[in-house]
Amino acid sequence: MPAAKFVGLDVGGTTMKAAVVDDSGVASRVATLDTNPERGQDAGLNTMCATIELAVKTAGLSMADVVAIGVATPGLMDIHAGLILDPPNLAPWKNVPVRDHIQKAFGKPTAFQNDANAAAFGEKWVGAAKGARSMIMFTLGTGVGGAVVIGDTVIEGEHSHGGELGHLRIDMPDRGRRCGCGALGCLEAYASATAVVERAREELARWRGPTELKPFQTVFDQKQFNAEVIFKLADAGDECARKVVDDTAYYLALGVCSTIAAVDPEVVVIGGGMAKSKAFLAKVDEYVRRFGLPYPTQTDRYAKALGRTDLPAPVKVVFAQLGETAGYIGAAGCARRLVGNK
Amino acid sequence: MPAAKFVGLDVGGTTMKAAVVDDSGVASRVATLDTNPERGQDAGLNTMCATIELAVKTAGLSMADVVAIGVATPGLMDIHAGLILDPPNLAPWKNVPVRDHIQKAFGKPTAFQNDANAAAFGEKWVGAAKGARSMIMFTLGTGVGGAVVIGDTVIEGEHSHGGELGHLRIDMPDRGRRCGCGALGCLEAYASATAVVERAREELARWRGPTELKPFQTVFDQKQFNAEVIFKLADAGDECARKVVDDTAYYLALGVCSTIAAVDPEVVVIGGGMAKSKAFLAKVDEYVRRFGLPYPTQTDRYAKALGRTDLPAPVKVVFAQLGETAGYIGAAGCARRLVGNK
Repeated sequence: MPAAKFVGLDVGGTTMKAAVVDDSGVASRVATLDTNPERGQDAGLNTMCATIELAVKTAGLSMADVVAIGVATPGLMDIHAGLILDPPNLAPWKNVPVRDHIQKAFGKPTAFQNDANAAAFGEKWVGAAKGARSMIMFTLGTGVGGAVVIGDTVIEGEHSHGGELGHLRIDMPDRGRRCGCGALGCLEAYASATAVVERAREELARWRGPTELKPFQTVFDQKQFNAEVIFKLADAGDECARKVVDDTAYYLALGVCSTIAAVDPEVVVIGGGMAKSKAFLAKVDEYVRRFGLPYPTQTDRYAKALGRTDLPAPVKVVFAQLGETAGYIGAAGCARRLVGNK
Repeated sequence: MPAAKFVGLDVGGTTMKAAVVDDSGVASRVATLDTNPERGQDAGLNTMCATIELAVKTAGLSMADVVAIGVATPGLMDIHAGLILDPPNLAPWKNVPVRDHIQKAFGKPTAFQNDANAAAFGEKWVGAAKGARSMIMFTLGTGVGGAVVIGDTVIEGEHSHGGELGHLRIDMPDRGRRCGCGALGCLEAYASATAVVERAREELARWRGPTELKPFQTVFDQKQFNAEVIFKLADAGDECARKVVDDTAYYLALGVCSTIAAVDPEVVVIGGGMAKSKAFLAKVDEYVRRFGLPYPTQTDRYAKALGRTDLPAPVKVVFAQLGETAGYIGAAGCARRLVGNK
């Protein structure tokens, strides 16, 4: 194993996860502690330090072996200032000086990043977009997270809101679906797990043919009627579920197309629990090609007409590979970049 | 004047424009020659060299005074390879090795850039976005041009299609307006000068009140029914024209909001002939605030609730300042960046 070691910490509403990651992106066993945000932010900062220490201990190392630390947290945040502002799932925390606290506590260079950005950075470093010059990532969960990474640079934005791809507009504000942010027509209102379930209910209400989806909706515990079930039934051939999943691919592709128009990345990474269906990924890919702006690539009619064989390949649409490890691996990658090991 | 001098060349379908630009972005008098693309690309490359030489002569300098050269051309192009591929308004040119040719002809470092990207780079260097850390630009003309500049980096994209903001999706592909690219629902199909005229015709067809627009439509020469006239009448208080202009602001703002979601820039620059109406700009600004994702800024309720006075200012929506000089000033800026004078 190479000498340089980094710690990546991923702070979530329920747990904090940390691991030691080496210079080639290999992570040691993860250390996990409960976040308990309700105990307040001072306790939270202490838990962050404890999780980092536990990760180092778990790896059989001491803090002296660690070159730098990276911390990923959910928004709202001020990345530039190193602060958590007031993320809904870390209430009642407010204005928490995460970066400075960790930096002082351990006396190590400390990188601070949004969790979705860190996950994308991890996928670009050692995951689905490894070796790509640029990538965008969409994570389909309760909401739709996103990130844009160009070269080694996470596009953080001037208000720490770069890569908020869940709020790409895909429909007009006078008739689109309502998003959690208040606006109508955001991608998140169509492609989040929550939105998938909502659209499935609507589809079922007008569905005339047979479908295995129905029993899931009528059981008392509505938790069983979730995006995973819908995707699973679609893969098993249920027509109603497949319609819902196809529509999800369609809506997601519209957001992908707009992001491609803005930054034209090499790779599009799709992450999140429900997005593991190959049929879904293939549909996203198909719709991206159908609705995206055509441009010259090595495989298309342009290249042929121009007699060129040296044009870049078309954009790749792929699954995320790192799963739940992306946050802390990416945070460690940000720490590594901070100290110039890139 | 500082010592370092750069030449910026802006190649258009009708004319080529070049000027010597100093290290602080001040341009000498412009030199202009006809492009005559129909004479072929070898003649075109010669004209590029002649325009550059003429600019140097016009500035009372010799080529020995020039540190580097920047060339901006319309797409399709391969920015990375330094080639024009086959832009529609430079037919029948194909696979023209612009960068290498200019570099060899003068023995100077040569930067090559898309014209919309170069214009944005110019606006960021010495124009409307001077001093900003990041900016996006929309140019409303026959089409809708665009660019994304983060720090000193133009987001060129992997297929030279970064900043193709005219092809942001603002409506669903099954019901949107048809764009020149073939797709339905692209921003360009709503906010280009051509689209403004089309929408004005539709508005007039259903307009019941008085309007000064009508006579412009019924004159024999349809060229008089153009976006400038519509914007002028709107500014003069014509209700029908104002509706068309307000709608244009609305559609443009939807594209701006999606780009903000992707890269969260400090400044949004709006350029192009028709976009000189202050009322129009104010409307774009209003709609961006209404439909964009809210984020913490120094002036809003978040900052107040958080007790913070150090948050960044909200995104600024401003007019372009450099007009037709943006292309060659920006190209010179790209040359300056190439040799590290930034």
